[in-house]
Amino acid sequence: MPLAPPPPSTPPLDISPDLLARFKAIVGDKYAITDPLDAAPYLTEERGLFGGHSPLVLRPGSTEEVAAICKLASETRTPLVPQGGNTGLVGGQIPHHGEVVVSTRRLDRIREVDPQSNTMTVEAGVILANAQQRAAEADRLFPLSLGSEGSCTIGGNLSTNAGGIAALAYGIARDLAVGIEVVLADGRIVRGLSSLKKDNTGYDLRNLFIGAEGTLGFITAATLKLFPRPHSVETAFAAITTPADALTLLDMSRSIAASNVTSFELLPQIAIDFVVKHGPSIRAPIAGTHPWYVLMEISSPREDARDTLEAILAKGMEDGIVHDAVIAANLDQRNAFWKLREVISPAQRPEGGSIKHDVSVPVAAVPNFLAEADAAVMRLIPGARPFAFGHLGDGNIHYNVSQPIGADTAGFLARWHDVNDVVHEVVARHGGSISAEHGIGVLKRAELPRVKDPVALDVMRAIKHLLDPHNIMNPGKVL
Amino acid sequence: MPLAPPPPSTPPLDISPDLLARFKAIVGDKYAITDPLDAAPYLTEERGLFGGHSPLVLRPGSTEEVAAICKLASETRTPLVPQGGNTGLVGGQIPHHGEVVVSTRRLDRIREVDPQSNTMTVEAGVILANAQQRAAEADRLFPLSLGSEGSCTIGGNLSTNAGGIAALAYGIARDLAVGIEVVLADGRIVRGLSSLKKDNTGYDLRNLFIGAEGTLGFITAATLKLFPRPHSVETAFAAITTPADALTLLDMSRSIAASNVTSFELLPQIAIDFVVKHGPSIRAPIAGTHPWYVLMEISSPREDARDTLEAILAKGMEDGIVHDAVIAANLDQRNAFWKLREVISPAQRPEGGSIKHDVSVPVAAVPNFLAEADAAVMRLIPGARPFAFGHLGDGNIHYNVSQPIGADTAGFLARWHDVNDVVHEVVARHGGSISAEHGIGVLKRAELPRVKDPVALDVMRAIKHLLDPHNIMNPGKVL
Repeated sequence: MPLAPPPPSTPPLDISPDLLARFKAIVGDKYAITDPLDAAPYLTEERGLFGGHSPLVLRPGSTEEVAAICKLASETRTPLVPQGGNTGLVGGQIPHHGEVVVSTRRLDRIREVDPQSNTMTVEAGVILANAQQRAAEADRLFPLSLGSEGSCTIGGNLSTNAGGIAALAYGIARDLAVGIEVVLADGRIVRGLSSLKKDNTGYDLRNLFIGAEGTLGFITAATLKLFPRPHSVETAFAAITTPADALTLLDMSRSIAASNVTSFELLPQIAIDFVVKHGPSIRAPIAGTHPWYVLMEISSPREDARDTLEAILAKGMEDGIVHDAVIAANLDQRNAFWKLREVISPAQRPEGGSIKHDVSVPVAAVPNFLAEADAAVMRLIPGARPFAFGHLGDGNIHYNVSQPIGADTAGFLARWHDVNDVVHEVVARHGGSISAEHGIGVLKRAELPRVKDPVALDVMRAIKHLLDPHNIMNPGKVL
Repeated sequence: MPLAPPPPSTPPLDISPDLLARFKAIVGDKYAITDPLDAAPYLTEERGLFGGHSPLVLRPGSTEEVAAICKLASETRTPLVPQGGNTGLVGGQIPHHGEVVVSTRRLDRIREVDPQSNTMTVEAGVILANAQQRAAEADRLFPLSLGSEGSCTIGGNLSTNAGGIAALAYGIARDLAVGIEVVLADGRIVRGLSSLKKDNTGYDLRNLFIGAEGTLGFITAATLKLFPRPHSVETAFAAITTPADALTLLDMSRSIAASNVTSFELLPQIAIDFVVKHGPSIRAPIAGTHPWYVLMEISSPREDARDTLEAILAKGMEDGIVHDAVIAANLDQRNAFWKLREVISPAQRPEGGSIKHDVSVPVAAVPNFLAEADAAVMRLIPGARPFAFGHLGDGNIHYNVSQPIGADTAGFLARWHDVNDVVHEVVARHGGSISAEHGIGVLKRAELPRVKDPVALDVMRAIKHLLDPHNIMNPGKVL
């Protein structure tokens, strides 16, 4: 099991039976969990990387109940941890110090779908896949898409400003919310739901709460942007030689298809190897071995996605960039391509320890970043296996490092911070980010001051203190 | 001349000769304007709606000079008014109370163009048209486009979160900046320039300063998003009967062409009448009179924009929505179409007073909003001529009201607030905004508390106090 850095220590929470009863009264006994067995799914995340403990898990059923919880917490200085689908990768949703967990899962109503305005208003606990589904029923697309979409929630997506595989064309979570409803630490409600595409009345508070990982307020609902549903979608795997070639192919694709290039993922041969070896009966999409692959998708409002994709691949072959390519022949094959992409992370586990990074650099810098990071990691740990994949179109690389074959896993993982250091140093040199889409949580909190502009960090701390003076909103996360 | 509401009163500024000299020393005598004649262009805006006075106009040449100005202003409690191209429509850039004006016009360097990362870093004083031009030279598109693009600046565009005619496909100014550099009120510099598409390290400060109209800090530079340049662009005028039909046509267009629908403007017959009568030799694009028109543009990465546009118009005619249409035959005609759109506002002047609104409602609510606002205005002032046009695709309508024919202009304009009240009441009923893209400035400051969520407003005031405790950054604007 990979080791995460220990969470920062704070005094343990002491919650009296009386206070416990007052919190329980807000949501009703049925929705207040104190039994350790029932609470367990809210305390540890799926990978087991982060585990916490809590005297109380609250499952409010309305914004007003969330407001009452925050008000009581504020008055009694009781720290809260907001939690959505509990799929976060940086420990932001875990009660590391016995905080009260406030789960959004019962806030699961889709309040309104307005296809003509291309908006949809949903509560924070709506599961991403359900939001996608409901948009599709209205002949619209809600484009946010990520591996955990079957269990992650809209509130979590917004709080962590999720990215995913369609950000290239449609933007990240931040770009997809036109309005949000937020409960402040003191229990007041900011009623910012709105279907407006344009609204220049005062400061933009929406983006302050989006991506704040629940440390500034509690997002209870959001108005989301919808798009026309593409009439044709085509997916291809293409074999290439270098990340620089992938970049040339991306450029070529966008010049032919502009925003119809809806996904552009980079994968190394080692990812195919691991998946074929350890994944659930997945075959390599292209015969033979090639240094790198691109998994790309074209979506079009007309029936021309296939023509476009063929034109791109033909040009890529003509220019000697694409060596081999296969277009998914049907929906099953398309799903298989994406399944392969989805299981890349778990497929690393049987190969021993994996030290992970979720970084971004300017798109043009990706090839140099990869070369320099590989060299730095190999110097540090000879035999280590760099395993870089991700959203090339966003400059967002999941730069993982698998342990050398046969090495001691614990010994390898003990060097987590050393590896982080050398990789993040290369990231910094290219003006990149150490958390492109997963957030800071507790995992990267200690590192933030080293990589962030100190003035920006000062402003962030001041805003945190302003909006949450008693530090009850997800304390110990982000800052 | 239309009357604007008087700016809020604050004590007049008393600036000593010694302090004047200290400010001048920062930028050098050559760039410190005290002569009233030289200062005049910085004190009054083009329409003459807002005029101010100032003992000093500073023209800093670097971010560091801006920082030194802010630091000194903070220490001496000297209020500043940041100013870009001085094209703002709500008085935000005017020194109403003798504040020191800080013009960004010398911050006009394009620091970097990175076509492969699709980003461009420019200083605040770069004129929008120059930024567009420079992007085009790199075979890229910087899509922000508005009437004043020949003189407005990127810093102003971001500070006011400008919208314009391409927001439907490419987003508003907020969506087009990936990073910004900001000088805080105390002179500290937030170094937030970045070419990263994804960066989840801490709170999003960028969007707090964007749209804050210079009241929270001074934007000195920005990294902007670039797009592939479309290979074909086609523009059409279409005659329709009702705003509801325009909405149906929009929906149809987006279902055929998705994000290739790059502009979708609604115009009434009265706009064509005024422009033809008063504009600079402009002809009606479509013969005869029709209640409403749509000016639409299709941009495609391939050579198919014309086919697409023809398909949309043919379908519109088949469905009985489009009665007549003309596609621009060449660039001259295309420019003439857009020229017509551009001179709509000035063409109202010879018709007497015009009471203006820059509102937005959910896209689907536009037809009802228009019908209800027209009725309310006519009830209030029989014979008044509603003159509504704008960005239908964003739900953003410039709802102007021209005086009744032959009425007394001053008497009509004296009812500015009454008309605002009834129109904004209809806006509120539809969950709309009283400032869709122009901002609050001084023009709508008094109205903000009536339309904005009180908790949101409280948070805004607290943030203003936090970041600008001495109220030196554009005081009296927005809040």
